[in-house]
Amino acid sequence: MPNHHRATLRREANTMTGSEPDREHASPPGAEPASCVRARPEQAVAWVEANTASLPAESVALADAGGRTLASAWAAPSDLPRLAAAADDGYALSAAATVGASDYNPLPFRLAPARAAPLGPGEAAPVHSGEPLPAGADAVVAVEDASVRGELLEVGAAVAVGANTIGAGEETARGQPLLESGRRLRAQDLALLALAGVERVDVVRRPRLRLLLAGAGPASPDALMVRGLLQRDGAELEACEAVTDAEALENRLREPGADLILVCGGSGDGTNDFGAAALARSGRMQFGGIAMNPGETTRLGQVDATPVMLLPGAPLACLYAYEWFAGRALRRLAGGSGEWPYGTRRALLSRKVASTLGRLEFCRVRLDGDKAEPLAVTDGRLLSSAVRADGFVPIAPSSEGHPEQTEVTVWLHTIT
Amino acid sequence: MPNHHRATLRREANTMTGSEPDREHASPPGAEPASCVRARPEQAVAWVEANTASLPAESVALADAGGRTLASAWAAPSDLPRLAAAADDGYALSAAATVGASDYNPLPFRLAPARAAPLGPGEAAPVHSGEPLPAGADAVVAVEDASVRGELLEVGAAVAVGANTIGAGEETARGQPLLESGRRLRAQDLALLALAGVERVDVVRRPRLRLLLAGAGPASPDALMVRGLLQRDGAELEACEAVTDAEALENRLREPGADLILVCGGSGDGTNDFGAAALARSGRMQFGGIAMNPGETTRLGQVDATPVMLLPGAPLACLYAYEWFAGRALRRLAGGSGEWPYGTRRALLSRKVASTLGRLEFCRVRLDGDKAEPLAVTDGRLLSSAVRADGFVPIAPSSEGHPEQTEVTVWLHTIT
Repeated sequence: MPNHHRATLRREANTMTGSEPDREHASPPGAEPASCVRARPEQAVAWVEANTASLPAESVALADAGGRTLASAWAAPSDLPRLAAAADDGYALSAAATVGASDYNPLPFRLAPARAAPLGPGEAAPVHSGEPLPAGADAVVAVEDASVRGELLEVGAAVAVGANTIGAGEETARGQPLLESGRRLRAQDLALLALAGVERVDVVRRPRLRLLLAGAGPASPDALMVRGLLQRDGAELEACEAVTDAEALENRLREPGADLILVCGGSGDGTNDFGAAALARSGRMQFGGIAMNPGETTRLGQVDATPVMLLPGAPLACLYAYEWFAGRALRRLAGGSGEWPYGTRRALLSRKVASTLGRLEFCRVRLDGDKAEPLAVTDGRLLSSAVRADGFVPIAPSSEGHPEQTEVTVWLHTIT
Repeated sequence: MPNHHRATLRREANTMTGSEPDREHASPPGAEPASCVRARPEQAVAWVEANTASLPAESVALADAGGRTLASAWAAPSDLPRLAAAADDGYALSAAATVGASDYNPLPFRLAPARAAPLGPGEAAPVHSGEPLPAGADAVVAVEDASVRGELLEVGAAVAVGANTIGAGEETARGQPLLESGRRLRAQDLALLALAGVERVDVVRRPRLRLLLAGAGPASPDALMVRGLLQRDGAELEACEAVTDAEALENRLREPGADLILVCGGSGDGTNDFGAAALARSGRMQFGGIAMNPGETTRLGQVDATPVMLLPGAPLACLYAYEWFAGRALRRLAGGSGEWPYGTRRALLSRKVASTLGRLEFCRVRLDGDKAEPLAVTDGRLLSSAVRADGFVPIAPSSEGHPEQTEVTVWLHTIT
């Protein structure tokens, strides 16, 4: 009964011995396909990283580029600002003409219209932040240091040459690298690009995720969960649909158009779990199970060059399998590093945590000040444990757990 | 020249004395409207918090609820699961009939169709994770512990009563509070609600932001920056448009439909800065400037009950004024706490940082390991300083800065 040689990992964690999973489950030569061996999680992660790289660039309008990943480094094509400009709203004038001005001795200037140039002697013109100084001006007096009296501007403060201005090239000099390739564009980056006159920018295309549900539908818990995680990881949903048999699944695995295919459910071995067979027939199964809990029945492979991940149907296992493999793949395809986007906290375990040697486990914890209260480790059944938890502590396969009061890094469960 | 009594704050930071800003700028009684006094930043924050509260609820489909804020606490209306259910994909059967089964002594069961009930003696039926156990079954054997042989299922492991199942009410008992009001819904929360059969959920309506650009257009640096920050703070853009004179601005301030109105630029006092006058005529100016740098010309007020914020036109000042006031208001309107969504790092200042007593200042820093290199504090001109920075350190009005090697909290500049 060769099918049963690999049956032990599902059993209660505390019956496990400490040996390495791939040795523990070694089978007589020839009796088992390689895909049935539980892989070490770090091997599977290395494979995911080797098989996912930044997608090609696409051009988007600057207003749509927030949060997107820059496809190539950006340097200003000319000095920024190109000419000396106002650093703030105010009045452009000649600094020399303000000598002696003070709150108690305001000096009068003739108020020229905005954008009047060149300024004559004794003239001042209103400027907005970012506008170039008109010829004849070498400083800006702040709006607060001046009062309009009819056609006159009374200036109540002496200003130095260059006051309230930004010199040519002071933001960034022509050709100097400012935004690196792979940078996720922030609000201030967009503003700087707009200052430089940029209207469109090349960013990494968003990965298209095909989400196939074996034995469930688009309103299933797994489908809602994965859809909730997609946006965080910079991906688009290419399709979200139920597949009811192996043939339909094979057809959808073979169809082009997706950058990553996830199949929720159908990752086991039974007759109602047709994912593995469909993947093996359509492409290649690389890992037929991972030494992790929850998430052990995760299978990874490819159809042509497209990574395919069969995630367990049990929602908690699906969550951690997504986090460990799918989220990483999507963030890498989107031009990022694959690292978790979660925030972290350092905290002290309020209770001892036992974990199974040879398996990566996820201890869900609730935070209370600097204490982390473990909710569940080896029990990988209850989705509500991840709902009640503030975050989780991954426990490496090489660890049997942690004593009470161990300081650990908690990864916060957040959606964004 | 009463207009000039309040003119000093714009000048170089190092000429400042240490006195409180609102005393320093006190004017002869009656000579100055209260709106011209620079308010303490914490007073302005308290006012923002007092004038922004969670918006009303709206019902959305579960698939659209990720990241949204729950409008009221949720408890399961019945036990979850209502009946004992499969915890994983496998075969439902009677545990008693598996006694003696092992890898080397598999026991045969007749394979019933899925959802066949009740099971007869010696029968097993395939179940998916989450499905109720059929009558006659009290355990699930994992797909990995069984092999299909034609119409027979060979079970290679004895299972205990309840194995691989979730008992009635084990996820959450009927009526027990599980998701608190104000919770931002995470992926696993959506999955749990789906498990409970929920299809729509009441969440706090997204705030609608009207963005008005005085002296600039919708493609201006400020407009792009604010649009880049909106999504992070859970808001929708109601409008983004240029206003060219005080009358047009007044009309837009008075028009209903927005939960918060931001005016970028036009926050000073000059003739080309009409924001303050328009706000004073349409509603009420509460704070006519804030003792902060950059961002000093920020003005806050209301038209009817709608908060209106005049942000400086200079992009760097606009950024920090948004962060300090507008982002906080939007997150509170969206049902959150107003706290910064930024991640933080503890780091040691690689250089001394000087700051002006009496003003809140923002020291932009670049991180290098556990070192924070200050890029700029009192120079509030260059937007590129926030582009080059990884984050910022707010320096309280009561502080003159920090010596080298001080451990500080750096708030990371991120868009999400």
